[in-house]
Amino acid sequence: MTSSRARDLGIRIGDADPGPAGAITDVAGVRVGHATIVEGDGPLRTGEGPVRTGVTVILPHEGSVEDEPLYAGFHWLNGNGELTGTAWIHDGGMLTTPIGLTNTHSVGVVRDTLIELAPRGGGHNSWGLPVVGETWDGVLNDIDGAHVTAAHVRAAYAAAERSGPGEAVAEGNVGGGTGMICHGFKGGVGTSSRVVEGGWTVGVLLQANHGRRERLTVDGVPVRIDDVPRPVPPAYEGAGSVIAIVATDAPLLPHQCRRLAQRAGLGIARTGGAGENSSGDGFLAFSTANRGRLPADRPGATPPPVFQVDALADARLDPLFHGIIEATEEAVVNALLAAETMTGRDGVTAYALDAERLLGLLRPRAGGG
Amino acid sequence: MTSSRARDLGIRIGDADPGPAGAITDVAGVRVGHATIVEGDGPLRTGEGPVRTGVTVILPHEGSVEDEPLYAGFHWLNGNGELTGTAWIHDGGMLTTPIGLTNTHSVGVVRDTLIELAPRGGGHNSWGLPVVGETWDGVLNDIDGAHVTAAHVRAAYAAAERSGPGEAVAEGNVGGGTGMICHGFKGGVGTSSRVVEGGWTVGVLLQANHGRRERLTVDGVPVRIDDVPRPVPPAYEGAGSVIAIVATDAPLLPHQCRRLAQRAGLGIARTGGAGENSSGDGFLAFSTANRGRLPADRPGATPPPVFQVDALADARLDPLFHGIIEATEEAVVNALLAAETMTGRDGVTAYALDAERLLGLLRPRAGGG
Amino acid sequence: MTSSRARDLGIRIGDADPGPAGAITDVAGVRVGHATIVEGDGPLRTGEGPVRTGVTVILPHEGSVEDEPLYAGFHWLNGNGELTGTAWIHDGGMLTTPIGLTNTHSVGVVRDTLIELAPRGGGHNSWGLPVVGETWDGVLNDIDGAHVTAAHVRAAYAAAERSGPGEAVAEGNVGGGTGMICHGFKGGVGTSSRVVEGGWTVGVLLQANHGRRERLTVDGVPVRIDDVPRPVPPAYEGAGSVIAIVATDAPLLPHQCRRLAQRAGLGIARTGGAGENSSGDGFLAFSTANRGRLPADRPGATPPPVFQVDALADARLDPLFHGIIEATEEAVVNALLAAETMTGRDGVTAYALDAERLLGLLRPRAGGG
Amino acid sequence: MTSSRARDLGIRIGDADPGPAGAITDVAGVRVGHATIVEGDGPLRTGEGPVRTGVTVILPHEGSVEDEPLYAGFHWLNGNGELTGTAWIHDGGMLTTPIGLTNTHSVGVVRDTLIELAPRGGGHNSWGLPVVGETWDGVLNDIDGAHVTAAHVRAAYAAAERSGPGEAVAEGNVGGGTGMICHGFKGGVGTSSRVVEGGWTVGVLLQANHGRRERLTVDGVPVRIDDVPRPVPPAYEGAGSVIAIVATDAPLLPHQCRRLAQRAGLGIARTGGAGENSSGDGFLAFSTANRGRLPADRPGATPPPVFQVDALADARLDPLFHGIIEATEEAVVNALLAAETMTGRDGVTAYALDAERLLGLLRPRAGGG
Repeated sequence: MTSSRARDLGIRIGDADPGPAGAITDVAGVRVGHATIVEGDGPLRTGEGPVRTGVTVILPHEGSVEDEPLYAGFHWLNGNGELTGTAWIHDGGMLTTPIGLTNTHSVGVVRDTLIELAPRGGGHNSWGLPVVGETWDGVLNDIDGAHVTAAHVRAAYAAAERSGPGEAVAEGNVGGGTGMICHGFKGGVGTSSRVVEGGWTVGVLLQANHGRRERLTVDGVPVRIDDVPRPVPPAYEGAGSVIAIVATDAPLLPHQCRRLAQRAGLGIARTGGAGENSSGDGFLAFSTANRGRLPADRPGATPPPVFQVDALADARLDPLFHGIIEATEEAVVNALLAAETMTGRDGVTAYALDAERLLGLLRPRAGGG
Repeated sequence: MTSSRARDLGIRIGDADPGPAGAITDVAGVRVGHATIVEGDGPLRTGEGPVRTGVTVILPHEGSVEDEPLYAGFHWLNGNGELTGTAWIHDGGMLTTPIGLTNTHSVGVVRDTLIELAPRGGGHNSWGLPVVGETWDGVLNDIDGAHVTAAHVRAAYAAAERSGPGEAVAEGNVGGGTGMICHGFKGGVGTSSRVVEGGWTVGVLLQANHGRRERLTVDGVPVRIDDVPRPVPPAYEGAGSVIAIVATDAPLLPHQCRRLAQRAGLGIARTGGAGENSSGDGFLAFSTANRGRLPADRPGATPPPVFQVDALADARLDPLFHGIIEATEEAVVNALLAAETMTGRDGVTAYALDAERLLGLLRPRAGGG
Repeated sequence: MTSSRARDLGIRIGDADPGPAGAITDVAGVRVGHATIVEGDGPLRTGEGPVRTGVTVILPHEGSVEDEPLYAGFHWLNGNGELTGTAWIHDGGMLTTPIGLTNTHSVGVVRDTLIELAPRGGGHNSWGLPVVGETWDGVLNDIDGAHVTAAHVRAAYAAAERSGPGEAVAEGNVGGGTGMICHGFKGGVGTSSRVVEGGWTVGVLLQANHGRRERLTVDGVPVRIDDVPRPVPPAYEGAGSVIAIVATDAPLLPHQCRRLAQRAGLGIARTGGAGENSSGDGFLAFSTANRGRLPADRPGATPPPVFQVDALADARLDPLFHGIIEATEEAVVNALLAAETMTGRDGVTAYALDAERLLGLLRPRAGGG
Repeated sequence: MTSSRARDLGIRIGDADPGPAGAITDVAGVRVGHATIVEGDGPLRTGEGPVRTGVTVILPHEGSVEDEPLYAGFHWLNGNGELTGTAWIHDGGMLTTPIGLTNTHSVGVVRDTLIELAPRGGGHNSWGLPVVGETWDGVLNDIDGAHVTAAHVRAAYAAAERSGPGEAVAEGNVGGGTGMICHGFKGGVGTSSRVVEGGWTVGVLLQANHGRRERLTVDGVPVRIDDVPRPVPPAYEGAGSVIAIVATDAPLLPHQCRRLAQRAGLGIARTGGAGENSSGDGFLAFSTANRGRLPADRPGATPPPVFQVDALADARLDPLFHGIIEATEEAVVNALLAAETMTGRDGVTAYALDAERLLGLLRPRAGGG
């Protein structure tokens, strides 16, 4: 049994309910596209393969993010990774570009291509500082082979543009998550959402490549499966990373987005992550609420000096915090459940987490509840 | 049944073992002293009582911390709190004073008194920037009554100085933790430690005043006890805070201490904390390893330009990360188990978490393991 | 000639003009009060004197800052200092209390007393996390003598409350600045302001205790006065600190306040500061514009979930940046010009910068312009 | 008269002297290579030109920086820019790759190519997180034309590898600085160094594309040249950026490197920069002193747990702070003096700052000194 999602299997993490799609696309306007590249088998020959990688593009809203930027913030649980574009998110508080996710050694091509693709109202007189995150798929993929090209970025971007409102998001071995490994099992893309008190939606999409086998915890229950072969020696586990993108329609200012981003790490912690030393655990949160109110930031621009934005009272933040912790936990489980066993570079195999076995471990507690 | 510690009750959190005292004092040289103030009953009369508060002092080593500073770092999961002295820890990377913990409105008197008490090698030509943290005990305590005085700080300091190497630390309703409330039960001081791979010890001491009743989780098991009266309306829960002090004998540089500090928050998350909006969840970590090697930082000082320090290879950090997560979880449980039911201001009662009931909730899973 | 201000002497720093008072009080609602303590002479006898110190209180607006918080941000050029209350300013983005400035060893008493004094709408069910900054006056003052008491804080607070709108601010040897030394001359409190493009006002008040004699630069001209005795050996210079409080009526969000705060450091740099190692150069900026719109942050509070605030377009920030750099430069010069020669502890004398000599140094360039 | 350096013209900024090359290469082991691309004239045709851009590569030492990482830190005066690789520098404190500088829209290709070029001891089982900074040359260059290719990165890298110890560094219209504009004049690459008390060398190399014409200040003297045409309307000025790379042989830990980095911004301030809103003013500092002592950080690596490093006493930092401020000032002036008038995209011309005119402005003060 594979490809079922946590909720479909009866795994209910936390108290709040997901939105209709159970995905980051439950936040209105957010769309996701993947380009997946799987080619070749056998021993690694750099530049030839085997290839197990891809690109995921997230469009924060239907328009030009340069022209209609969104407030955003980010947090690193552990910084052994890359998330371009964060200097301006720190200082300007705004997301001004689409978001790309890919493997560690293809961040550059994704970044430069996103500049080419994203509509820029300032045209040749403006600039792009795209946000691109990564995790390392070199266990299964010819990561030094430069297999991600501008064409793949365009394909993922186009797929995101084509997708309908609130559309489900493919998970597991897709897009940037294609070759990832999580807690010693096959990992990849996972997503979930929560509708919380006040009617706000929070969604998370993550590229899960982190964690040690022996620390995996699902809904508080330690998952100790020792008889499934591991793709890498235990010493290598924890070497991966997890990038999570958090979206919400709650009206958050930049510093509130940053606080939300940090909570994604608490969801990672609850599933057994520790922000291990070799891991790049970075989280970006943005709010779609003030779309169209923030002036584009361009040299020579003369926007009206003052604009009005909505802000959420801090006293209403806790449900969002709890929601994002729950959604992050569930997104990790979804990534593990959606991912299918994959054999890649040098014949290495990353095995999927078996849903039946997982349910068998969870059942005793459910019964005693 | 009260006052038993988690380990004594068979609650084993995580994989590593605590040190001999199961306390922050397992890190050689670290000592702890409490001054506990419990006076009066009945309605609040500001300045008169009831008083349910105190001070805890942590001495990082046996000497003058000004003369022999230690590398340190800190992290806020949520910043609705105070931890003085952190500007220099951020920039200079050093802890140069003892540490005090008290209630929110007594931080000042503790801070100024620590300057008076701590030996300063530079005498009247040097200065102190003490580290003092706080959580808010106004539910049970006359917090505006200025009941913590310099005499109490001196008493706690003296108690710490008197205590022997590796001595056990009183927990629960003591020192700064006297009037605290945690996850809707009586909270207070808790401590634990881990001896990890490489032989390093990590210890944590926390003043636990955080969390909502319905989110408390012990070793992955949700604790849902609804029939014990709450000291405050549910809306107020999560309004507390938790300050954790992390010590280790592993040789960490300042940026490594900061990374360690962030992991304390993951332990908080695993017990159900979320860094709620009204909570001041701040963590300070210091390393005793390079004691005596770091020159005192004083104007006009002319230390040898270059000194040598030990540093831990980053590849060896993960056991420390895991250890501090486990020790933090256990310290929260210890705080809850040690704390006894207390009635304070206006007759409000905070009930202790009953150890038998807790064990009853944990047992099913233990049996199925 | 003493006590003249830079503008009065014809020293015009930068391009924009100051407001009517040339002070932080040009930002409507901001008021300043000082309590100055000068007692005794001769050798240091701790607890007896000589005393050369004080307290300055800044009220950000006419009401309760707890009930009507303001967006704020801060920046450290060098963190060898204290500025309490910044954890919440970082995370919550709000200033919720009056601001105190004093000597390094009296921060605590000022902090605790501000909690007592500041009206708290939540009464005994809310808390205060006051902002108190410091610089070190131990060269002239019995800094370990605990001469600043709650009574002085109350006096400075009352003086601020009494002061009228846009009132001039006493500078030099007053309040927290009483015993300070700046660039080897007598320092203290200085203030200035700028009215910038868009009609916004930015004001700065600083407690100047920083800098080396040989690096002092006024309006780009090196001030090399070597024949005036120094209060401390050159090796000690640069050991001081400077705390600057920046106010504006421009509608800035928290991250914009933080950016403004960093610019105060550029003004310090232009007058010869370098954020020397022993210096605590910290800057806090707040915006009065959204007063009354931000809900108070209290446990159990149920403000309307969403509120509206004004925000300044980033494209309009530069005039504020330039203005605060200029106002900071001018405030340093004002502090030096206002301060009068003072003899303190152990007969040490800090000499005032002579205005005539300074003008003599500046004149050649003015003539050649 | 063009291409002379500040020192050659008698402009002496600050107190300390430069090293033999007056360049970042005075720090032993540091090498710099440029690839400069100048092609075509006339109207902009995206993808065809005109091209006025390039790449600069800095090799921090002669070996593999992955195998022998260096302590490093960074600071943003204003974050409207990109500097990849900083998440790990923040958290791990280490520079593990060469450094690239280029135009804003070519960061990706430089980044990915540096991964290909930099020797990685872990081979296909390790990863690269290169540091690449940028400033925007779209006024003169077809920045959307993707003219920087992997071949240019390889050429700049090879040029750096070929260069000898302590070799002079080409400045002005070269490498990443080819198409840059600074304070309304033609800008580009500039470098300088200082040998400071203790015998340490600090060097800076910057890509200068920042500042407004009317704010340019050289050695404290305002440069007000209004009769030279500007390449862009005044409203656009300040839209550029400056990236500075700081190197030193002083043994600094990561947090000390970060402090050093911030001081580069004070040098920018002294020449009239303000970290304007549209500017990406980012500074990276690294220390070559502990080369070979820091273990490579790779998954599965088992370095000895503890290693020894040298650290500079904080009390010895001030001369480095002063030195880097001076060297940054001088590097900006060198960039302006070395840059030659350039006509680019759409016939726009950026005029060089005329050295004779500059000297004429500086002379009166020199005479009166």
